[in-house]
Amino acid sequence: MAAFPLSDLTSPLRVAPGPIDLSAVETDATPGFDGDKGDGEKALQELAPELEELQERLFADGTADGRRSILLVLQGMDTSGKGGTLRSTVGLMDPQGVRITSFKAPTEEERKHDFLWRITKALPPEGLVGVFDRSHYEDVLIARVRELAPPDEIRRRYQAINDWEADLVEQGTTIIKCMLHISAAEQKERLLARLDDPTKHWKYNPGDVDERELWPAYQEAYELAIERTNTDIAPWHVIPADRKWYRNLAIGTLLLDALRAFDLSWPEADFDVEHEKQRLLDEKPL
Amino acid sequence: MAAFPLSDLTSPLRVAPGPIDLSAVETDATPGFDGDKGDGEKALQELAPELEELQERLFADGTADGRRSILLVLQGMDTSGKGGTLRSTVGLMDPQGVRITSFKAPTEEERKHDFLWRITKALPPEGLVGVFDRSHYEDVLIARVRELAPPDEIRRRYQAINDWEADLVEQGTTIIKCMLHISAAEQKERLLARLDDPTKHWKYNPGDVDERELWPAYQEAYELAIERTNTDIAPWHVIPADRKWYRNLAIGTLLLDALRAFDLSWPEADFDVEHEKQRLLDEKPL
Repeated sequence: MAAFPLSDLTSPLRVAPGPIDLSAVETDATPGFDGDKGDGEKALQELAPELEELQERLFADGTADGRRSILLVLQGMDTSGKGGTLRSTVGLMDPQGVRITSFKAPTEEERKHDFLWRITKALPPEGLVGVFDRSHYEDVLIARVRELAPPDEIRRRYQAINDWEADLVEQGTTIIKCMLHISAAEQKERLLARLDDPTKHWKYNPGDVDERELWPAYQEAYELAIERTNTDIAPWHVIPADRKWYRNLAIGTLLLDALRAFDLSWPEADFDVEHEKQRLLDEKPL
Repeated sequence: MAAFPLSDLTSPLRVAPGPIDLSAVETDATPGFDGDKGDGEKALQELAPELEELQERLFADGTADGRRSILLVLQGMDTSGKGGTLRSTVGLMDPQGVRITSFKAPTEEERKHDFLWRITKALPPEGLVGVFDRSHYEDVLIARVRELAPPDEIRRRYQAINDWEADLVEQGTTIIKCMLHISAAEQKERLLARLDDPTKHWKYNPGDVDERELWPAYQEAYELAIERTNTDIAPWHVIPADRKWYRNLAIGTLLLDALRAFDLSWPEADFDVEHEKQRLLDEKPL
């Protein structure tokens, strides 16, 4: 059992309806959590056993005609910590029950279809926790900033996303949408740190700096996307992400909160337990 | 750095060429490791940092035109611990770099194709660690025991597997084939334990006991499959698996050994590092 009420953390992260001004959201804050780094890391480790157990219940439920699943959507600028979240928080769960998809620029085949085609193919089956490292939101983020689609099409997509997410929720999926929010100064530090460390050069791509130069346009695209797709059934969360430990704890808390809300019991046996015991106890030597 | 030479463990697990008598391989032994459960769990945790680092190097290599990957094949009777291995050992690695596939009975569509069709589709891309929970070996195991295919076809499949695996190794994949070896008595205990615990009933399937009654036929099918497909380039390992901690440590050791053998360095930057630093340091305010 977590030592603090989960809602302390989850409530302030949830974006209120209406326009959002990302510049007013502090990237190095730790809303809902009073402790320091050590406390935060400890708190995450304390969540882990319940996270694991409830994830196993979800998995079990999926094997027994349950229809529930979780879809965790991770969005954020380069270096905002999507990969670190996968390692540190998603990695706490049983890998059998997790399906991670990293979306890159669409392939030629994918571009022939509607933007939601490849996304739909990657949805988690019943009982699983699906995690999107980038997602359909790129189609209203980079697509807007880089003018990969005309404004009318971007507007159409907000609504298409809302309809598609509503269907998904209707089918039993809980969608957790997170924007990992870092400052431009923090990104600069992280990019310079990658350049200073030869074991990190493979993570660095000069193209990331081209995108960085469009920082204000990206922030605006995020604000618009969040406002237009911040629905009751699939709300957005903005996670202050300059502090990695807080980011990890926040996402762990959101996952645990969603799992708790399923309120799942273990599936009941669909066979005669006593008969099966006797069968094993009475068996002839093999 | 692991505190014991990996080869102490990996060598005795590797199956020697020629016929194998599984009944002569003790299922509760701990070959190559002197310690007890506590020591074994500690040893696995001590492997973890190097396992993680080398897995990241493999992943990095995959992003930089490297062609290497790992395919861990887990086979074993029901309750032998395939799921536990995924949780405890595979779960030590970064989930971004791992792709787990659990093979069930083939679907109608899959049955229309050659048995290796669905297996090939599940292969790990470059840089990844693919894990098969059951595999193409079911097509010479249950297929033989349950006579799902005629003897001629089973014989053809041994060779088809060897050819297919040779291609895979040629393309850069290291294949680690493991049979998790438990005794019939241990399986009985584990099945009874599942029946005694309502939180485990979902894992129990009366059909598993039908298969159990064919224990000797399965052992023979394993012996034949192992002998016929125990090649130099993709050898078999029989892992004594009555002790879960030893099984976890053994698989962790085999993974680490395979990763070490790649002897990968970090990819070199394909951009001008100093130029990129200056670009960031000289940028105009965003």
